[in-house]
Amino acid sequence: VSAPLDELRAKLTPGAVLEPADGLERYERSVLFDRRGQAAFAVRPKTVDDVRSVVRWAVRHRVRLVAQGANSGLVDAGLPDASGEMGVLSLELCRERLDIDPLDRTVTASAGWDLDGVNDRLAAHGLRVPVDVGSNPLIGGMISTNTGGTNVVRYGDVRRLTRGVQVVVADEDATVLDLLAAVRKNNAGLDLKQLFIGAAGTLGIVTAATMDVAVLPRQRAVAWVGVSGDRGAFALLQVLERRAGELLTSFEMMSGRMLQLRARHKPDLRQPFPLDAIPPLALLIELSSTIDPASGLDVAQLLAEIIGAHAADGTVIDAVFGPPEQMWAMRHGIDETAAEGYQFWVDVCFARSAIADFRARFDELLDARYPGWEFIDLGHYGDGGLHAAGMYPFRLGREPPPEEVEALRGEVYELVSELGGSFSAEHGIGPSNAAYYHAYTPTDVQRLSGRLKAVFDPHGILGVTRFGTAAPG
Amino acid sequence: VSAPLDELRAKLTPGAVLEPADGLERYERSVLFDRRGQAAFAVRPKTVDDVRSVVRWAVRHRVRLVAQGANSGLVDAGLPDASGEMGVLSLELCRERLDIDPLDRTVTASAGWDLDGVNDRLAAHGLRVPVDVGSNPLIGGMISTNTGGTNVVRYGDVRRLTRGVQVVVADEDATVLDLLAAVRKNNAGLDLKQLFIGAAGTLGIVTAATMDVAVLPRQRAVAWVGVSGDRGAFALLQVLERRAGELLTSFEMMSGRMLQLRARHKPDLRQPFPLDAIPPLALLIELSSTIDPASGLDVAQLLAEIIGAHAADGTVIDAVFGPPEQMWAMRHGIDETAAEGYQFWVDVCFARSAIADFRARFDELLDARYPGWEFIDLGHYGDGGLHAAGMYPFRLGREPPPEEVEALRGEVYELVSELGGSFSAEHGIGPSNAAYYHAYTPTDVQRLSGRLKAVFDPHGILGVTRFGTAAPG
Repeated sequence: VSAPLDELRAKLTPGAVLEPADGLERYERSVLFDRRGQAAFAVRPKTVDDVRSVVRWAVRHRVRLVAQGANSGLVDAGLPDASGEMGVLSLELCRERLDIDPLDRTVTASAGWDLDGVNDRLAAHGLRVPVDVGSNPLIGGMISTNTGGTNVVRYGDVRRLTRGVQVVVADEDATVLDLLAAVRKNNAGLDLKQLFIGAAGTLGIVTAATMDVAVLPRQRAVAWVGVSGDRGAFALLQVLERRAGELLTSFEMMSGRMLQLRARHKPDLRQPFPLDAIPPLALLIELSSTIDPASGLDVAQLLAEIIGAHAADGTVIDAVFGPPEQMWAMRHGIDETAAEGYQFWVDVCFARSAIADFRARFDELLDARYPGWEFIDLGHYGDGGLHAAGMYPFRLGREPPPEEVEALRGEVYELVSELGGSFSAEHGIGPSNAAYYHAYTPTDVQRLSGRLKAVFDPHGILGVTRFGTAAPG
Repeated sequence: VSAPLDELRAKLTPGAVLEPADGLERYERSVLFDRRGQAAFAVRPKTVDDVRSVVRWAVRHRVRLVAQGANSGLVDAGLPDASGEMGVLSLELCRERLDIDPLDRTVTASAGWDLDGVNDRLAAHGLRVPVDVGSNPLIGGMISTNTGGTNVVRYGDVRRLTRGVQVVVADEDATVLDLLAAVRKNNAGLDLKQLFIGAAGTLGIVTAATMDVAVLPRQRAVAWVGVSGDRGAFALLQVLERRAGELLTSFEMMSGRMLQLRARHKPDLRQPFPLDAIPPLALLIELSSTIDPASGLDVAQLLAEIIGAHAADGTVIDAVFGPPEQMWAMRHGIDETAAEGYQFWVDVCFARSAIADFRARFDELLDARYPGWEFIDLGHYGDGGLHAAGMYPFRLGREPPPEEVEALRGEVYELVSELGGSFSAEHGIGPSNAAYYHAYTPTDVQRLSGRLKAVFDPHGILGVTRFGTAAPG
């Protein structure tokens, strides 16, 4: 970057600006994957005013910025590209505000607060941000990603939990939009804040958010249920929604093949089912409630009762009950399957009624035309979400030809589109899947998205993801 | 209108276009209030293609259109203005689609379907759109208004229930944006559909929507609880959320003064409390559940138990339990208070922690400087919503001076703003409150809203509400 970094440095606290000589690796590298970009610099504002200074400077000098949180995203939307010309605007030190309103059940936090940190403080009030993910994202990253997780069936995604946001947009003045109004209902005009949720930092820099928080449950019950297939799984889901809908907190699926792989690769991990009787599909089901068991509701008993009654239809093979932490621990170790083979994953979502079809057709596709490939998946069946992969086992002794991977990937996305699904359910859009955004988003939607982008970021300096055909940059 | 209506007529089915000679009164008049506009014509498309024909024609001839549903809105956003130059685009005949997916718990309906009609069909599946309002709006109107109601604390507003929309925007080609994807999670790009929810038909014509629907409850319990004031009311709300949060379906407030007025004006209506012991605040509380009482949970018993235990704090004056329909019926007849005096109402929403302050200060304002005026209100305390009014009783024998009404109105909106509230919680923005949008919405938000408007409706032909300073027309 030829831009005068000294000018930027002068506006911020000492140490806010880091250059390659200072070591930028942690701002260039994804936490989970072996992927990286190259940054011209990293800047770490502490306040909203700092953020404005950075954006104003960047607009003036036409320096491209990528907003970054905990770097735990899965599509690289928070990493600089490979040009070496982008600056990383890390929100990690932006922790000015943390206000809890227990009566209103909200928390207002600056973008740099981490989820665990916020939840630690909320716990003192018997509250929490009801988002369960396998990482510890920053609040700003959660807003920009519209994080999902394993509790969406009960509490919704981050969009649903978000009452307001504060954003710095990329016009000459780096205007702050204060859309933090802490109200549950606000119909006083266009709801601009919605645009910034899940926008991957491309329309503005999210500097704070107000979120609804949930009351900690008084009782939880968790079970692993083995079923004979999708028909049985969705029948059980419907029964649960009709007999205990408001208590259903998670309804997760793991395929039998996934459990087998996990057992083979990590024999020391505890398994929900005997190794010689792993069912075709395993469901991890949680009911939870704020109601005291003394009031007559015992969620463990209710869960056992519903599963027991449903078992009469013949689709339930086995059910295992136990302490919630122990049951959930058996879901971990999935990442270990990466050691089993080359994998390409899709993060998709369907109407629940279309999931079975997608799974069957993905599997058939591999069987019919991609020799050696295996289908593995797990999902958030309660909300229609599915993480599915084609895996080419290492035991085959070679990498799959790149053109075969690309062909398969294309066919799978085509199938997602045909079945009316979303090709990015919860991970968002970033360099790792942007090609599919351009291929599968209607042209008109892309065109209008580009025009929206231009309203908030007229010079196209924000983000690595390019939404819309008209996006400058 | 000098535009060639014959050209429009030729594109649609016979009878689709109505002119003043045909009688346009029902398209010009608000259902609830004595307010009206004047239409050049009304057009009633039956299909999405029809809507496109209308919009394309209107863009070409620069004819301004206002989309209209059941005409049950409260801010006149669906009425033509007084110019006599606007056309009413009524969606009442647009009923092409009604698809129910019971497994996915969704309904996809064309804009012209009415709420009661949709719910009748959903009932066969044990489902319903969980929106309770005192009218029967059309689906398109509900999306464009982001309807609230008495169940928001449990199910959220229409925005939260909306998975997708189909919209015709006002460019030359009348582009259809198909954003109906029936998925619970979709992070595949900017979430354009959000912009059309609550936009009062100013960005496009909503032609269909996919909404989440809820399982009909298996048990309900409703109580009227008299409390000594706001402290007691919110203490009870917190206890309910912490002991039965997931069952709380309504937490409504009616002030003692409101109940007194209602009793005085309609002595035949049944009262929840003895007339000589009307409490300062009355709460209408509903718990409901999909859980069978045979499973150990009796919601009536739980509600009585929680209220009983809480009564020990001294703020509970009286509690009345009874069949849900009977209890809810006692909330009706509020409109009758209109016969008591001149009233101006505000539809506001606050963080719950700010409601008590707003009520007290509104009341004090009247006492201190507006002789004769009385404060009346009722609200959706669970979600922070409040409908509050200054009333000038007819018994004073004269109308309040208009300048006094305007001064008071201004002071009340100022107070709403000072306390961080929304000045339009659920009714939206239309001619009847647009002045407050312009006065209390930050200039930057208005400016950017105007630019968003221009993206979807570049010629400014849609709607009567003008969001944004840059709105053309």
